[in-house]
Amino acid sequence: MNTLGIAVIGTGKMGADHVRRIGDTVGGARVVAVADAVADPDGDRAKAVAAGVEGAAAFTDPAAATAAPGVDAVLIASPGPAHEEAILHALERELPVLCEKPLTPDPEGALRVLEAERRVGRRLVQVGFMRRFDAEYERLKELLDAGGIGRPLFLHCRHRNASSPSFFTSDMLISDSVVHEVDAARWLLGQEVTAVTVLSPRPSSAAPEGLSDPRLVLLETSGGAIVDVEIFVNCGFGYQVRCEAVGESGSARIGDGHAMVVESAGRWGGEIAQDFTTRFADAYDRQVRRWVAAAARGRVDGPDAWDGYAAAAVSEAGLAAGRSGVRTEVRLVERPELYR
Amino acid sequence: MNTLGIAVIGTGKMGADHVRRIGDTVGGARVVAVADAVADPDGDRAKAVAAGVEGAAAFTDPAAATAAPGVDAVLIASPGPAHEEAILHALERELPVLCEKPLTPDPEGALRVLEAERRVGRRLVQVGFMRRFDAEYERLKELLDAGGIGRPLFLHCRHRNASSPSFFTSDMLISDSVVHEVDAARWLLGQEVTAVTVLSPRPSSAAPEGLSDPRLVLLETSGGAIVDVEIFVNCGFGYQVRCEAVGESGSARIGDGHAMVVESAGRWGGEIAQDFTTRFADAYDRQVRRWVAAAARGRVDGPDAWDGYAAAAVSEAGLAAGRSGVRTEVRLVERPELYR
Amino acid sequence: MNTLGIAVIGTGKMGADHVRRIGDTVGGARVVAVADAVADPDGDRAKAVAAGVEGAAAFTDPAAATAAPGVDAVLIASPGPAHEEAILHALERELPVLCEKPLTPDPEGALRVLEAERRVGRRLVQVGFMRRFDAEYERLKELLDAGGIGRPLFLHCRHRNASSPSFFTSDMLISDSVVHEVDAARWLLGQEVTAVTVLSPRPSSAAPEGLSDPRLVLLETSGGAIVDVEIFVNCGFGYQVRCEAVGESGSARIGDGHAMVVESAGRWGGEIAQDFTTRFADAYDRQVRRWVAAAARGRVDGPDAWDGYAAAAVSEAGLAAGRSGVRTEVRLVERPELYR
Amino acid sequence: MNTLGIAVIGTGKMGADHVRRIGDTVGGARVVAVADAVADPDGDRAKAVAAGVEGAAAFTDPAAATAAPGVDAVLIASPGPAHEEAILHALERELPVLCEKPLTPDPEGALRVLEAERRVGRRLVQVGFMRRFDAEYERLKELLDAGGIGRPLFLHCRHRNASSPSFFTSDMLISDSVVHEVDAARWLLGQEVTAVTVLSPRPSSAAPEGLSDPRLVLLETSGGAIVDVEIFVNCGFGYQVRCEAVGESGSARIGDGHAMVVESAGRWGGEIAQDFTTRFADAYDRQVRRWVAAAARGRVDGPDAWDGYAAAAVSEAGLAAGRSGVRTEVRLVERPELYR
Repeated sequence: MNTLGIAVIGTGKMGADHVRRIGDTVGGARVVAVADAVADPDGDRAKAVAAGVEGAAAFTDPAAATAAPGVDAVLIASPGPAHEEAILHALERELPVLCEKPLTPDPEGALRVLEAERRVGRRLVQVGFMRRFDAEYERLKELLDAGGIGRPLFLHCRHRNASSPSFFTSDMLISDSVVHEVDAARWLLGQEVTAVTVLSPRPSSAAPEGLSDPRLVLLETSGGAIVDVEIFVNCGFGYQVRCEAVGESGSARIGDGHAMVVESAGRWGGEIAQDFTTRFADAYDRQVRRWVAAAARGRVDGPDAWDGYAAAAVSEAGLAAGRSGVRTEVRLVERPELYR
Repeated sequence: MNTLGIAVIGTGKMGADHVRRIGDTVGGARVVAVADAVADPDGDRAKAVAAGVEGAAAFTDPAAATAAPGVDAVLIASPGPAHEEAILHALERELPVLCEKPLTPDPEGALRVLEAERRVGRRLVQVGFMRRFDAEYERLKELLDAGGIGRPLFLHCRHRNASSPSFFTSDMLISDSVVHEVDAARWLLGQEVTAVTVLSPRPSSAAPEGLSDPRLVLLETSGGAIVDVEIFVNCGFGYQVRCEAVGESGSARIGDGHAMVVESAGRWGGEIAQDFTTRFADAYDRQVRRWVAAAARGRVDGPDAWDGYAAAAVSEAGLAAGRSGVRTEVRLVERPELYR
Repeated sequence: MNTLGIAVIGTGKMGADHVRRIGDTVGGARVVAVADAVADPDGDRAKAVAAGVEGAAAFTDPAAATAAPGVDAVLIASPGPAHEEAILHALERELPVLCEKPLTPDPEGALRVLEAERRVGRRLVQVGFMRRFDAEYERLKELLDAGGIGRPLFLHCRHRNASSPSFFTSDMLISDSVVHEVDAARWLLGQEVTAVTVLSPRPSSAAPEGLSDPRLVLLETSGGAIVDVEIFVNCGFGYQVRCEAVGESGSARIGDGHAMVVESAGRWGGEIAQDFTTRFADAYDRQVRRWVAAAARGRVDGPDAWDGYAAAAVSEAGLAAGRSGVRTEVRLVERPELYR
Repeated sequence: MNTLGIAVIGTGKMGADHVRRIGDTVGGARVVAVADAVADPDGDRAKAVAAGVEGAAAFTDPAAATAAPGVDAVLIASPGPAHEEAILHALERELPVLCEKPLTPDPEGALRVLEAERRVGRRLVQVGFMRRFDAEYERLKELLDAGGIGRPLFLHCRHRNASSPSFFTSDMLISDSVVHEVDAARWLLGQEVTAVTVLSPRPSSAAPEGLSDPRLVLLETSGGAIVDVEIFVNCGFGYQVRCEAVGESGSARIGDGHAMVVESAGRWGGEIAQDFTTRFADAYDRQVRRWVAAAARGRVDGPDAWDGYAAAAVSEAGLAAGRSGVRTEVRLVERPELYR
């Protein structure tokens, strides 16, 4: 088996982290090309990232990186608006793609990606919903699939960040944060989301002026289940991702994070992880390892372009629901043959 | 201090249990009169209950029991529709009352009770929302009042029964079950409920035909908090009452019930209580003990008639929301001076 | 049923607390006499305690209190060395006794109590090992008795105090603290303790100079089980009493105390109770309520004088083991007919 | 960086698992030679294992495998008695070694390994105490090193297997099982073990005839701490490895394994892993990844030959203590300069 040559598009925190990951913990792959997505005319950031990797070249243009010699697959970690173009470049060359979420910022772009894959004739695009590779989520999925708690009725989800970056908007609570629960819910339940309602309590005083944080997002699904998501991106105390599935004969909860219990000074308990790189470190590693193995065989092993499209469609409805305060239905095109 | 003589109205499960409780674990009180609320012309049930208590007389008529010699206070454990009349009889005699929830089935009856108390000129009626006397709820209330997690933003509540009695209706999930969360939320937050939304997933196959079980009930409050309640009365696996309060700087959760952890046959964990008499045994005891102490001083020590009225008003809005599927506002009369 | 008249001997923290308890939460009983055990020639402390109770008289002499009119039973909460005399006074009058642990400081005194009971011809003395009335211990006992985890092989016990009083000695870690585990182990297992070994790590720097704290006390039992007790009376962080029973087919653990879980400032967890009055409040209440009910029938409902004797004998062996550093066997007299 | 060529000695369960691991999840390394340790004259087992790996050759003789072209490092997973010879072969060629525990079955063999390393002049041998690479143990170690709970006083350890293999002996509870706690304790505390005591309760009826299972093993350390280990290799309900460290100002516990909590049929709780490959899967992966990275630089990154020697010396004392029933001191040679 030859080593898979990867072009990494995007040189921010996520891109650099993927470059490090491929070098450190992913066997059978190496980074051969690095490019920033946008606004890096001299390619300085790409050069800095590539400098740490033997045999990796820096490019000022994503298309050139994708077309570089030895590139067998493309990992896209650029900002969302740059995804569509980078994916289309890769599909033109029939290269496997791992694209950080969102696939595209809106459903229309995602439909164009679906159309491009249809022309290629096989699924090449995987979306970076890494929760599907988390050990706890995998156990929950197995339990649900095995009927361990009967038909699912509710998913009660909590998604909390210690604080949000300065550019975060009320829309992004839904399109950037809850989108993870949208995919997790679709995957865990094997159902599509059909409607969204958003309730917004009086914002936390810890939230920046104008940010509607926290919110309660309610998803209805094609199988009659209800998903409620508390999204709270300035909770102050840490990063928490929890999910309780309630079924007809039992419930199951993940995300409590009880690895070590400490007792001191009148309190028992443990630490709360401060960000997703701690909580989901293994999931990111496993995602890329499995993508590399699948890409070497020309396959997708994880959420595909349809999953990216569906998430974008739910996001769009969620944004409308958040602005209007009323229940908003989700509209999906018919699912193409390729994704059934 | 003389022993408080109590008339118990209602001879069903709750009434008989209160009679036992007063004899066993409540100092300073004794049952002197017992009457069934309705349809017991020969008073057989009352006789059976009274037979176990030295010095207790059985009556066929609640009014007669209330008027019996030695009656200092009245405990009402009859069905909801019989509450109003029994309370009014007691108020005519200016006797302290402990009335099982609901105070009355609808807000109109509760308003008549408020008016009767106004005529007496002091608060004499306490409603049996016993969760306020549960040790875990008390700790949560203390934490919230002390600002331990900042201003509350969410209460995430779970209320599950192993199975529902045969007469249970979809309305009763709200008026008989969620009403406990309505009172708990009002008390924990110190706020009124302003609107109700009800979402109903596809019913569990374990629910009787026609019963909309489970449901997700969403309450909005005057202080801008949101309360979500999963009510599931045929969950099959036990009785669970949980509440997670999420505030601006932390969260707190009660009801996990981790008293004993057992490890065997490949599983770790514990038992789930099968009904409320186990989970809230201490709360019932403490409620009656504190009511007896307060009644001996002519006072109320717990949820009062206004709390009963507010719960009835929220219930009414909840029933409308459950039937219509849309958000329904709660209308309250102005709070009388007596209850401020 | 008449109200049980109780003489309380001992006016320290425990005595005063029992007087309060009988007034507040124990139905069917009242305090009629109070005496300090020793060194209270003017009876000022007894007067202070009695002053708060209607109908209670203060005495300067325990014997006089026991002999006072209306005394039906005696509760002894004086220091250990005063127990024997007070018990013998009560037995002369054939009065039921609840005696705080230890029954007596040494096995010889306990044997004299056994002999006095033999002369009376029935069991009248109960020892205040209140853990037997704790809800968690009761559940553990039920589980063991039902064979829920098979034949018990180990009890792993933790007994921690935030700090020890100034008069505490290395011996008292065994005779005053571990003695609770001695009784709990005998009761849970239904076996006698046959040998004791004590290991002493380098003392904690938080322990007062000269105090061998913490220690690990190992008990062997007649049924071939082993009990290890970590006793740590200056742990600094709170009061913790835990017990894990390991059987042939499972294990069970109590004492984790997970009533409320709080998440804030990067930590999840809960409070640790700071002393036994919090942790065992209900157990103390229940112990006295059940003793009152049993005493009214002339019976013992809890650990009896034999249990007090056995604990004293194990204590004595434990003190020797602690001083010598080697395994020390426990010697018991043959169990009299009365206690079989 | 070139790929590290590894010879794997031993073709049993562990050896085959390491071969799989190097292929699947360890970047920068590949298996180039495989040999069984003993009694495989035709090399059939080695051929079977090598067959699955591109470029790997099978050998009938460990020495030949070690001397094969392209071998940069040696991983030894043969039975304990074969370790010494295989290590000495590798040291003759100055190759880095990862040797499964025990380093050697007795301290004398380990001393010969130390002497061989001394001749080479640098540390090349790492012992497979994989717990040091487990995320929970690492967090506990960090906490202890940071003084998070003060100076450690106790380690309370539980080590349970669902059942033991047919060849397991009473000695092996100590030399094969508790040896993991011996290394973990030395590493966590940074202290040597100075004495061992073994208490044996009446064996579980689930243990094979003649096997003294379970046992309680007590270690004393050079810093005055005490380590108690419950070893129970036929507990029936699963594989559990727990450690509670108790320090002067707090305690910390790992190994509860609360990843997913399920509620059904009257019980809450989770699964117990059935063997070490589940519980320590990540630790094994990380151990080999870090050894590969260190070996490529000619270094050891983990427990070294001195750790292997010390564990063998404690084991030897433990076996004597288990047979005699009395406390047995551990004798260590002076620590050579190379290991300070």
